[in-house]
Amino acid sequence: MSEDNVIYVGNKPVMNYVLAAVTQFNEGAKEVTIKARGRAISRAVDTAEVVKNRFLVDVVVDKIEIGTEELKSEKGENIKVSSIEIFLKRE
Amino acid sequence: MSEDNVIYVGNKPVMNYVLAAVTQFNEGAKEVTIKARGRAISRAVDTAEVVKNRFLVDVVVDKIEIGTEELKSEKGENIKVSSIEIFLKRE
Repeated sequence: MSEDNVIYVGNKPVMNYVLAAVTQFNEGAKEVTIKARGRAISRAVDTAEVVKNRFLVDVVVDKIEIGTEELKSEKGENIKVSSIEIFLKRE
Repeated sequence: MSEDNVIYVGNKPVMNYVLAAVTQFNEGAKEVTIKARGRAISRAVDTAEVVKNRFLVDVVVDKIEIGTEELKSEKGENIKVSSIEIFLKRE
């Protein structure tokens, strides 16, 4: 789920990702990036909002980037899916 | 669905919102904002990506803001929902 200060949001409950982000900040990270694709994008926004509104009030959104990624479907077709990166930082 | 250069994304197909945004730019708008809440956030990102990658290549993301809004549920309870605003502009 996470790699060097990056949290990949999938289909688990939002709190899983919130706790992962809070843990990284509590272990000294100055920045944590939340990434998601497709329908998980809404959950990534939820995660960022809960982290900064209910857990770490000194954490702010540094910037947000959106993009399009190309994936292979199970049948091997190329499909395009939207992506988001929410860069959180401690002030 | 749209008000002065603002497009509210809901549950309709993405192309509805894409065409609304493209129409506003074609009618001379320099900026169009795409707004959504909750699960429609992913669709708002899809809309922005399709507009700028497949229809209007001179349109870019100016900035993106996320937030939390408080709504009344059907039972009258206060519920919090995430929101996004994607500011598109023509270069």
